[in-house]
Amino acid sequence: MERNVEISMLNQIYGKLLTKKQYEIIDDYYNHDLSLSEIAENNEITRQAVRDILKKGEKKLYEYEEKLKDKKKTEEQEKVINEIVQELKEIAPKCKDKEITNILGKIEKKLKALI
Amino acid sequence: MERNVEISMLNQIYGKLLTKKQYEIIDDYYNHDLSLSEIAENNEITRQAVRDILKKGEKKLYEYEEKLKDKKKTEEQEKVINEIVQELKEIAPKCKDKEITNILGKIEKKLKALI
Repeated sequence: MERNVEISMLNQIYGKLLTKKQYEIIDDYYNHDLSLSEIAENNEITRQAVRDILKKGEKKLYEYEEKLKDKKKTEEQEKVINEIVQELKEIAPKCKDKEITNILGKIEKKLKALI
Repeated sequence: MERNVEISMLNQIYGKLLTKKQYEIIDDYYNHDLSLSEIAENNEITRQAVRDILKKGEKKLYEYEEKLKDKKKTEEQEKVINEIVQELKEIAPKCKDKEITNILGKIEKKLKALI
């Protein structure tokens, strides 16, 4: 996974554990593609200060993932659920019973809602 | 949910974000049923110090749950997965096709492994 995408995801998961400023600056930089200069101007701080806040915030995000592994767990769960959805899709047409295919369809929807 | 059980669960989820001492004392008190006096003696600190560490650690655990909601999300997911497992159990006997019932059985196992 690209580092940019990864940091953006980690900020979605753990951003509430950062300071508001750290969260917002990481969000501006990685999600809204603002430049260091733009962020510096908006916050009335130097570009170096922006760099420091990004660096410190990113370090904290990686530490949270190292400890809680929420991103890893979510990805693993998504993988299993996608596999199951695929299997349900394959058996549904083989089922002759309307009631059963209906229930399988509902199960598929519930599973997709989990991810 | 009983407060004791809740704190024990929160410590399982977020314990790595606490200090080692906070984690261990909460674990001793809520999982291993050690008394304040026993914990105080083992750690060579006063009972009041044990109380303070428990209180501070518990507060942090509730703050993490407030922000990340991992416990709540896990419980909601478990509920949905249990519902699906139940539905699969109900349709399996109605399926005449051996291949389909085999696949449904495998899906059920995969789902149970998620929780």
